[in-house]
Amino acid sequence: MPVPRSRRTQAERRATTRARILGSTAECLLERGYAATTISEVQERAGLARGTIQHHFPTRAALLVGAISHLVDSRIERFRAEAALVEDGPGKMQAVVDLVWRDLTSPVFFAALELWVAARTDADLRAALVPEEKRLFASMRELYAGTLGEPYTSDPRVDTLVEFTVDLLTGLSLATMLAPDGGARDAVLARWKRALAVLAGLLPAVELLDGPGTIGP
Amino acid sequence: MPVPRSRRTQAERRATTRARILGSTAECLLERGYAATTISEVQERAGLARGTIQHHFPTRAALLVGAISHLVDSRIERFRAEAALVEDGPGKMQAVVDLVWRDLTSPVFFAALELWVAARTDADLRAALVPEEKRLFASMRELYAGTLGEPYTSDPRVDTLVEFTVDLLTGLSLATMLAPDGGARDAVLARWKRALAVLAGLLPAVELLDGPGTIGP
Repeated sequence: MPVPRSRRTQAERRATTRARILGSTAECLLERGYAATTISEVQERAGLARGTIQHHFPTRAALLVGAISHLVDSRIERFRAEAALVEDGPGKMQAVVDLVWRDLTSPVFFAALELWVAARTDADLRAALVPEEKRLFASMRELYAGTLGEPYTSDPRVDTLVEFTVDLLTGLSLATMLAPDGGARDAVLARWKRALAVLAGLLPAVELLDGPGTIGP
Repeated sequence: MPVPRSRRTQAERRATTRARILGSTAECLLERGYAATTISEVQERAGLARGTIQHHFPTRAALLVGAISHLVDSRIERFRAEAALVEDGPGKMQAVVDLVWRDLTSPVFFAALELWVAARTDADLRAALVPEEKRLFASMRELYAGTLGEPYTSDPRVDTLVEFTVDLLTGLSLATMLAPDGGARDAVLARWKRALAVLAGLLPAVELLDGPGTIGP
């Protein structure tokens, strides 16, 4: 039975407003940081009445919890779209490193980082964040393995190599966040791609540092 | 010519008060986070008059900038003391990984992380933090290379392996900060120690995942 037109429109409108509020929250986290992300600031950015914000999110805490799922959804969606564009071939492992790097240096990642660090000293935020981040990691790992395809998908080393890659690129993103040095950062990325090939048994160890090039075409 | 007794005492007292204020600031960053680290909060923890705090640090911004050098000094000092205890032998590379891990999961690291993330959206804090972090990284790399000794010190791959290790362990520390899973975390560390041996050409790639043990005694 079709949903009456007027009711669907109301639900749609509600969803649009909610998305607009959460989009403004993410933008505020990115540009101003966690401490400055208040209901007033979000209200101003979203161009909505305070009552409208509070109807959807009665407290600042509720708003920040809402932002968590919104950010996780955006990251998964974007990653899925980009992963679909990776072409088959021997350069696939390197292409996945690039995908991870784009995620871990995206505006959405830096907005999420604000919540992640704040959650260390905020038990309520942490309780909301931990399951959502588990959902993110599970989705991403599945996408990485799927993008790599065989023989990697069934290679028991791949999970470890994915874990290494995500951890290493997270650290590199943080280290270069405040004072970007594109050259040094690109060299680390190129070397990590070589290191992955060494760890997967595709290259001998001695070739690890032979110039900044990548493996494969 | 000896400094008059009364003047030295005053300088000493000044340094002690300053260290006490900065210690309380670090403690507050660790326990309450960046947003809650205000002059009032630090004053209460340090048990000093507001005027005393403001004599040393006229603004909250000055206090946070002061905390940066204090945290960097603590990390270098502690690392130096621990590095001196590393015994010679084939397990040295693994011992350095453990040193890095202890630093990147120490209270001082998490206090510094608060400032690091806040500096992304605070230009003044960033300007003060970037040179201090450069000092930290330079000291640590020198200590890592010195601790490893020959033949590693003069191996051009060591810089890259140190960079990989610091970045990977930073990411792992962040990933496990909110929901510690000791078993999973220890497995990644043990595997990274094996991976380093593979990358240094000491182990064939296929042995990367042979159980959670470490290389060497």
